[in-house]
Amino acid sequence: MTGSIVVIAGGVGGAKMVQGFVDICAPGTVSVIGNVGDDWEFHGLWVSPDIDTVTYTLAGLIDQEKGWGVQDESFRVLSALRGLGRETWMQLGDQDLALHIYRTERRRDGDRPSDIARDIAERLGVPATILLPTDDALHTKVETPMGWLAFQEYFVRERCAPTVTGVRIDGAETAVATPEALAAIAAADLIVIAPSNPIVSIGPILAVPGIREALAGRTVPCVAVSPLVGGKAIKGPAVQMMTALGHTANAVGVAGIYGDLVDAFVIDEIDQALAPGLARPGRDIWVEQTVMRTAEDKGALAKRIMERIAEMGLGKVHS
Amino acid sequence: MTGSIVVIAGGVGGAKMVQGFVDICAPGTVSVIGNVGDDWEFHGLWVSPDIDTVTYTLAGLIDQEKGWGVQDESFRVLSALRGLGRETWMQLGDQDLALHIYRTERRRDGDRPSDIARDIAERLGVPATILLPTDDALHTKVETPMGWLAFQEYFVRERCAPTVTGVRIDGAETAVATPEALAAIAAADLIVIAPSNPIVSIGPILAVPGIREALAGRTVPCVAVSPLVGGKAIKGPAVQMMTALGHTANAVGVAGIYGDLVDAFVIDEIDQALAPGLARPGRDIWVEQTVMRTAEDKGALAKRIMERIAEMGLGKVHS
Repeated sequence: MTGSIVVIAGGVGGAKMVQGFVDICAPGTVSVIGNVGDDWEFHGLWVSPDIDTVTYTLAGLIDQEKGWGVQDESFRVLSALRGLGRETWMQLGDQDLALHIYRTERRRDGDRPSDIARDIAERLGVPATILLPTDDALHTKVETPMGWLAFQEYFVRERCAPTVTGVRIDGAETAVATPEALAAIAAADLIVIAPSNPIVSIGPILAVPGIREALAGRTVPCVAVSPLVGGKAIKGPAVQMMTALGHTANAVGVAGIYGDLVDAFVIDEIDQALAPGLARPGRDIWVEQTVMRTAEDKGALAKRIMERIAEMGLGKVHS
Repeated sequence: MTGSIVVIAGGVGGAKMVQGFVDICAPGTVSVIGNVGDDWEFHGLWVSPDIDTVTYTLAGLIDQEKGWGVQDESFRVLSALRGLGRETWMQLGDQDLALHIYRTERRRDGDRPSDIARDIAERLGVPATILLPTDDALHTKVETPMGWLAFQEYFVRERCAPTVTGVRIDGAETAVATPEALAAIAAADLIVIAPSNPIVSIGPILAVPGIREALAGRTVPCVAVSPLVGGKAIKGPAVQMMTALGHTANAVGVAGIYGDLVDAFVIDEIDQALAPGLARPGRDIWVEQTVMRTAEDKGALAKRIMERIAEMGLGKVHS
């Protein structure tokens, strides 16, 4: 298959999935619509953690061990900001800060966030098209006993410790989808929802008016990969959040969130027993090795998805 | 003498002079009114080169060899910005950028630049009071065959190579002097104009409405040190600028620019022959070793000025 692939992706897990498709697909065929709900200002600079994780991963610059930030990073600026009395719990490295300085300056100059993200990706040599779901500001907020926290406050500062009682996506109601994201969905031959947190990574993308509708109106397959494996997230607070919001905290709950948006749902081999209960008319369940530890894992999962798409009809359980 | 000293100072030369007074005076007695005419935005960040040079010098952080910037500085952010296609001729180091990020955020939050400069000085342990002449934006512009350049464009990017045909201080007419600067002048027991460029370092300070008037109305001595020694500047484009603007490019020209603002004018030993011509009723000429190469030089010059003030009447040539 050499058609266009659009991956809807959050941060670390999403970036791995995109990388897998880039590894096995023809140049110029993979686009990713990323999450801007994690965006937040630190030190007056506009930080876009999920978009940057995707960008760094695809540029080959990511710190593999941490899964975020740049390899061989230094923290000279952050250390000096700490010396000036600033809160520095958000670990922003020097090379990373350059990106935020660049983004912030261009945003203040009135440039579209989409154009900025595209230019950064080009400069860093990203072999995929990085699209924003919206150029408007979205801010994912997490309700806890401490009150409503910005996502990064909950995720980084509080290390996901507070009990989650609610999630909201500020700005979503009035956000306008980018023409690039809508065009990419319309032109796609395959849509993939990456194994990212369905609430705070995929959720803000789908919350942009027009995006969910464009996906719902698709004429091509949409495949989602469960981010929960054996009822646990590879990374991040998906389980706590899903539980708090009344979802079953496993692949079944994820499938429930995506509902009719997916034509095939990929679960891990460890969750094989869930497959029969998940299958239903119009939704194929594919059982695969979904945990992407190595570069080979990423390409292998993407390849299996492509093979399944090429080989099979939908609506049955395949393993 | 244990009274209050206010030093009007530009960048490198000014910082040295202030350091000299700090070295020999009682704690808490030295204030400096610095130059904000060099301020400019780089990468969307508010950079204040002269104020920072004074701050770094007094904090003991200055790169002694260069005379500006911080010791043991790295340039990781700048290097990354260059990779993103930005112009990086302004050498902004990582620790330095932290200051600019901090300043920019607080300015955008509506904090007074004076308060920000004070807080930075306190955080960095500066043993003097750093005052801004105004909280309004001043921008020194230099007219050249390339057109009007921002001072840093002329000074750093073009390395002072273009012929200067004019200088203007944008924003000066409507700038409001800070109450702190006016209060410091009113409370001073001695005012010193440091050996800084009279056009683009001292000039913007005196151009703030109310500052020159406050100096003119002083009831205490004002001593200026010539930045030109043997018709040359220790550093910077003072000679070209003074020539371009019709001043004699030596201590005589500097004395002419300050006119009645100074009660005593300090020239270097090398310029001793100029002393008789410079002396006039109400203006003492003091001949000293004015070039400050070592830490001892700075304190020695300050000490000589203090001794002269303590010992002598004004209006005669002393050497």
